Amino acid sequence: MTRIAVLPSSLPILSEAIERAGAIPIDDPTIADAIVWADPSSPAKLKAVLEHSNARWVQLPFAGIESFFDSGAIDDSRVWTCAKGIYGPATAEHAFALTLAAAHQLHRHARATEWSYDLGARRLDGTTAVVIGTGGIGESYARFVKPLGVRLLAVNRSGSPAPWADQTTTSDSMLPFIDQADWIVVAAASTSSTKHLINGSVLGRMRSDAWIINVARGSLIDTNALIAALESNRIGGAALDVTEPEPLPKEHVLWRLPNVIITSHSANPFRLALGELSALLERNVARFITGEPLEGLVDVKLGY
Amino acid sequence: MTRIAVLPSSLPILSEAIERAGAIPIDDPTIADAIVWADPSSPAKLKAVLEHSNARWVQLPFAGIESFFDSGAIDDSRVWTCAKGIYGPATAEHAFALTLAAAHQLHRHARATEWSYDLGARRLDGTTAVVIGTGGIGESYARFVKPLGVRLLAVNRSGSPAPWADQTTTSDSMLPFIDQADWIVVAAASTSSTKHLINGSVLGRMRSDAWIINVARGSLIDTNALIAALESNRIGGAALDVTEPEPLPKEHVLWRLPNVIITSHSANPFRLALGELSALLERNVARFITGEPLEGLVDVKLGY
Repeated sequence: MTRIAVLPSSLPILSEAIERAGAIPIDDPTIADAIVWADPSSPAKLKAVLEHSNARWVQLPFAGIESFFDSGAIDDSRVWTCAKGIYGPATAEHAFALTLAAAHQLHRHARATEWSYDLGARRLDGTTAVVIGTGGIGESYARFVKPLGVRLLAVNRSGSPAPWADQTTTSDSMLPFIDQADWIVVAAASTSSTKHLINGSVLGRMRSDAWIINVARGSLIDTNALIAALESNRIGGAALDVTEPEPLPKEHVLWRLPNVIITSHSANPFRLALGELSALLERNVARFITGEPLEGLVDVKLGY
Repeated sequence: MTRIAVLPSSLPILSEAIERAGAIPIDDPTIADAIVWADPSSPAKLKAVLEHSNARWVQLPFAGIESFFDSGAIDDSRVWTCAKGIYGPATAEHAFALTLAAAHQLHRHARATEWSYDLGARRLDGTTAVVIGTGGIGESYARFVKPLGVRLLAVNRSGSPAPWADQTTTSDSMLPFIDQADWIVVAAASTSSTKHLINGSVLGRMRSDAWIINVARGSLIDTNALIAALESNRIGGAALDVTEPEPLPKEHVLWRLPNVIITSHSANPFRLALGELSALLERNVARFITGEPLEGLVDVKLGY
């Protein structure tokens, strides 16, 4: 029987998924065929565990795994899978909530302490969203916003067309898309090539009423350039679930700008994705047993 | 030729719609066959104008017309139409923005001045919305929330099934629906029979995490009962585009409750519906000329 260790501590919903797939959930990595690592905050601990394990496969139950690369835990000696796609619907829903909040000026209404006449709310109908990243978040975001009449443009590394977008281009040639954007949704993986993808040049091409919405990683935006654009009202605003640094220190200027909403990395808490995660794990354990290709394979060279 | 007066002052987008339909826009009510009254704040002025007019039809370009009934402007001697349905998409989008803000705790994030760990955000998937009122708002709201996995229950006066809802019941028997609600969206007309429809008994049946979202009229909710429920955290919160009284005075306690969002009647500004309104006017003028039944007929007995 295949033995799968759930570490650093067991989680009933994951152990049950492993059993349903026909394997045995255990807690000893030294005799495990595979490891499910359910702690996003301790890549170094996983690295130490792997030194005494012959596990051929490691499942990470998150989508953003750059800290595991940085720690050196991930290498080519095993198969790695992450939970890309799993957090797509939850994260996309949060990005959508932020889009609507920006359009309807909910941040200003939430802070108001008296009746405010027309703050310039807009409708989504007829607006354009540029989605940077064509993974699970973009796909769900598109499904959510289309009934409200939003046009979608997509950006990814290769320019390979996203089926849900009117047009797709590469990140190297995205400026003409930025010109048209009412909403720019940052939903790409954090890698060395996406660091500060949203820099001063990109921000400089945004319309004065356009918002940038980041549900990916803080490192994708040049924070200083963003602050300059926000302070001078050269762009409409920023809705940031993620920041650089993170957590954002209490004294940081972003907390005090009227055209900013910060949601403290709440788009995709583990607890909101446990259902999808246990379903993924069940599928992957079954595939591991029969030797089929796993879902969410990590490309060790690309870093995600 | 049919003469249509646009009053109290002309609006080019409406005059153009009248011309496209084959009638003549004028500004003198004494020789007008019909009147378009484009000022929501002056029902008494309309009443005075009508005393010197033989206009057979009056088009009101709003949906909530109770102040025109209260002023005595509306009577059976002419045909009255209002813009019910026209504001549906804009108002529903606002109700949807408020639903997502409540689910994702955006009001608390918007007010935060430091990083806040898990505020208990929820996803819409698997939640239940009870929509009170089955006009244009409910229909659009249903279309918007369904892709996010929201189950819909509808409430109206007659209990006649709303095609977009899983179940529909009458306002007299809605308490079993309230028990199931995550989100209660108030989107019904303001009439003598809907005054304080949401009273202490209804609020008492709400779950402790359920939100009430009012995009209709403040009078539909018993404000004192609502405040009691909010202050004691017996319900999740309230998102209020409309209030009683309105505008809500600066010193009102609702401005200070952490589980409240107030959006100052911004769901459906006139300017956001002008496109739909001019299209309605063009259709109605054409129907008036040929004697076909008009859209948005006001039922003088029911009061909407």
